Amino acid sequence: MPIQRQDVEYITELLNERNYKVLRSVFDDMNSVDLASAIESLPQEQALIAFRTLPKETEAEVFAEFDSDMQQKIVEAITDTELSRIIDDLWVDDAVDMIEEMPAQLVNRVLRNSSPETRSLINQFLNYPENSAGSVMTSEFTKLSKDMTVKEAIEHIRKVGEDRETIYTCYVIDADRHLEGKVTVKELLLANDNELIKNIMETEQPFTVTTDDREDAAKLLAKYDLIALPVVDAQNHLVGIITIDDALDVLREETTEDFHKMAAISPSEKPYLKTSVFRLAANRFVWLLCLMLSGMVTGAILGSYEAVYSSIPVLVSFMPMLTGTGGNAGSQSSTMVIRGMALGEIKVSDIFYVVWKEFRISIIVGIILAAANYIRLLIMYGNLGLIPLVVALAQIGAIIMAKTIGSILPIVAKMLKIDPAIMAAPLITTIVDAVTLVLYYSIAGKLLM
Amino acid sequence: MPIQRQDVEYITELLNERNYKVLRSVFDDMNSVDLASAIESLPQEQALIAFRTLPKETEAEVFAEFDSDMQQKIVEAITDTELSRIIDDLWVDDAVDMIEEMPAQLVNRVLRNSSPETRSLINQFLNYPENSAGSVMTSEFTKLSKDMTVKEAIEHIRKVGEDRETIYTCYVIDADRHLEGKVTVKELLLANDNELIKNIMETEQPFTVTTDDREDAAKLLAKYDLIALPVVDAQNHLVGIITIDDALDVLREETTEDFHKMAAISPSEKPYLKTSVFRLAANRFVWLLCLMLSGMVTGAILGSYEAVYSSIPVLVSFMPMLTGTGGNAGSQSSTMVIRGMALGEIKVSDIFYVVWKEFRISIIVGIILAAANYIRLLIMYGNLGLIPLVVALAQIGAIIMAKTIGSILPIVAKMLKIDPAIMAAPLITTIVDAVTLVLYYSIAGKLLM
Repeated sequence: MPIQRQDVEYITELLNERNYKVLRSVFDDMNSVDLASAIESLPQEQALIAFRTLPKETEAEVFAEFDSDMQQKIVEAITDTELSRIIDDLWVDDAVDMIEEMPAQLVNRVLRNSSPETRSLINQFLNYPENSAGSVMTSEFTKLSKDMTVKEAIEHIRKVGEDRETIYTCYVIDADRHLEGKVTVKELLLANDNELIKNIMETEQPFTVTTDDREDAAKLLAKYDLIALPVVDAQNHLVGIITIDDALDVLREETTEDFHKMAAISPSEKPYLKTSVFRLAANRFVWLLCLMLSGMVTGAILGSYEAVYSSIPVLVSFMPMLTGTGGNAGSQSSTMVIRGMALGEIKVSDIFYVVWKEFRISIIVGIILAAANYIRLLIMYGNLGLIPLVVALAQIGAIIMAKTIGSILPIVAKMLKIDPAIMAAPLITTIVDAVTLVLYYSIAGKLLM
Repeated sequence: MPIQRQDVEYITELLNERNYKVLRSVFDDMNSVDLASAIESLPQEQALIAFRTLPKETEAEVFAEFDSDMQQKIVEAITDTELSRIIDDLWVDDAVDMIEEMPAQLVNRVLRNSSPETRSLINQFLNYPENSAGSVMTSEFTKLSKDMTVKEAIEHIRKVGEDRETIYTCYVIDADRHLEGKVTVKELLLANDNELIKNIMETEQPFTVTTDDREDAAKLLAKYDLIALPVVDAQNHLVGIITIDDALDVLREETTEDFHKMAAISPSEKPYLKTSVFRLAANRFVWLLCLMLSGMVTGAILGSYEAVYSSIPVLVSFMPMLTGTGGNAGSQSSTMVIRGMALGEIKVSDIFYVVWKEFRISIIVGIILAAANYIRLLIMYGNLGLIPLVVALAQIGAIIMAKTIGSILPIVAKMLKIDPAIMAAPLITTIVDAVTLVLYYSIAGKLLM
């Protein structure tokens, strides 16, 4: 259960009393996620003492749950022997995550203190491209050979299982480490002891390549309801697995990135509360500047209609409503399409179907909204002559164009291998602003001047 | 691997040749996810024949993967005996998902053809509130008692495992079905045969209550890296588990809902391509209407400054840039806060910290953008007198107000138990439009008239 205020207070009290015996038994009852967040919420001095009070077996597990700032502080404070023990106990993917966030001199100290095998694995992982399947996989998995019996396989798992991040899916490989099949522990337990693995293994299975995109790999786990996905290298050797908990983290991070991009924010890795004001300002500034420049272009276009609005100033008061509704209508369409593509529900080949659908939606929505608007204008400003008609026509046109633009741009981006999430509300509303105002004042110029 | 065009063509060919023997062997090599999507892409007649060609054991598994339209068509076409066999083979949560989407007369036929136990389970599930933990749990899980030895436990799993959706986490319950602890199959396999379960079980573990929100339950699985989460009723009886694959689906659905709400679309359950134009139009219309009405209010406020812009019409051409930049700056803040709260990174109690952070960001971003703008205006329109200063001041003010409003409103919504996702771009930009224009024309009125 989530860590409570009183737990932290109790731990602080025990630390002050130097009652390490009771503290150890409190720690024993807590899981590593809660332990890590309790220790993180202590003042630095006490956090270090608390961390050192942990039983050796859980040290690495708790360490893996800390955020990178806390990990750095610990690494700086502990001895080389302690460091070396923790690193060798960490899952390799967690060790790599830690190292990626660290300043260079600490990285060197960490690598110096890992065992040769761990160091070579870490180096191998660090070389996989960012956001690749290789960068999130773990190299600890259970290998079986197809000529084992079920009984031998279970014995093998019982022997080596302690070092493996997940044992529930075992992979069958040949002498050259080529992936031949998989068998789950469930299948092993339900099979006859003397059955051969080759008779019960599944040979057709989803897999990913180290250089594939980590998001695509994570989606495969989600699609096929897997708890682990095998990762092979270019020569089809099995080199690791991606576990469901890491896949879940990947999907959440990628989704957060989409949310941010869709709000014109350059994505950042750190949580909001831990990112500096300058970093946050920088992540937002570039996009705001681009959009401001587009807004200036809209202003320049608008300037060419000065004759219209300076002779009929009341037209100005309908501008926010027209651009606002247009922008919102366009963002609805682009969000639908961007999210649909992210979920794999909409494909590039659906472009005509999607645009035709959005076109029909825009006709329905546009006509009803414009009609409501027209009636309101007739009632409230009966003396405006043709102006209500101008507003209504501009509104229908704006909504149709907005939904068409909003649905086409994300798909076109995908075709051009640009992230569709960029074609979201901010850019769409900026484009729709310009288009709506040109339409509005053109119609006004024709009908009123 | 994803289903290929040629697979479907090959299946069609085999169906046309009535070569059911080869077809069966093709089906044997495919997993249920790919099988379901291959069959769904066939014309209806052929899809039915293909479905009937499936081996009895995989029928239910493939059926569970179909979308609800296809499930209905199958249910309408098969005999009561076939229906009854499929339903009893389905996991109860899949059967419930199917029933929730069906018209009433089909639901009755389905319930009539399930075994009494399945029917009572389905009814029990249907009574859990929508979006509750109870509505996504499965009642098939492995129960152990604490006085079993490891050997007995493994034998028990081997005996009953076939009916259980996940066997990897087993739950220890007392005679009254109260949850006492859990033990994973990994722990069982690594333990000594004669060890008692009570000595190796974990007694402290995250759990959820049937009436809890399903999203909170899914987040617990993600937070603690679980593959199953126990669900208890109000009397603390263990009644089911939520598995990681279902939790992942919940998180994806809830995220999609957030995306849609944040774009002013009422959430819908069905995928975009399967939703009718009228349904989609209706989901978007209400919000557009509300936002249009707010836009009218902005227009009315703007009307009161007619004296200002009718005497200095050039002011109008800077409006889209000012409202656009303000709206985008506000949406950036609200998106950051909404997503941060959804991930649990930002809490209601952080409100002052967040607003202070956004205020400092807005000062930095606002001053730089306004300065850039001011210089541009001086260069391009040197003869505008104080107008560049008015635009720059309005811009700084608009960005500060936008980021403050954008960061406060989602947190206030959360305090009032309203979904923060509603306080996103569409609403924020509408509010910021009004505030920006009032500020702009007030400054213009003071400095220029």
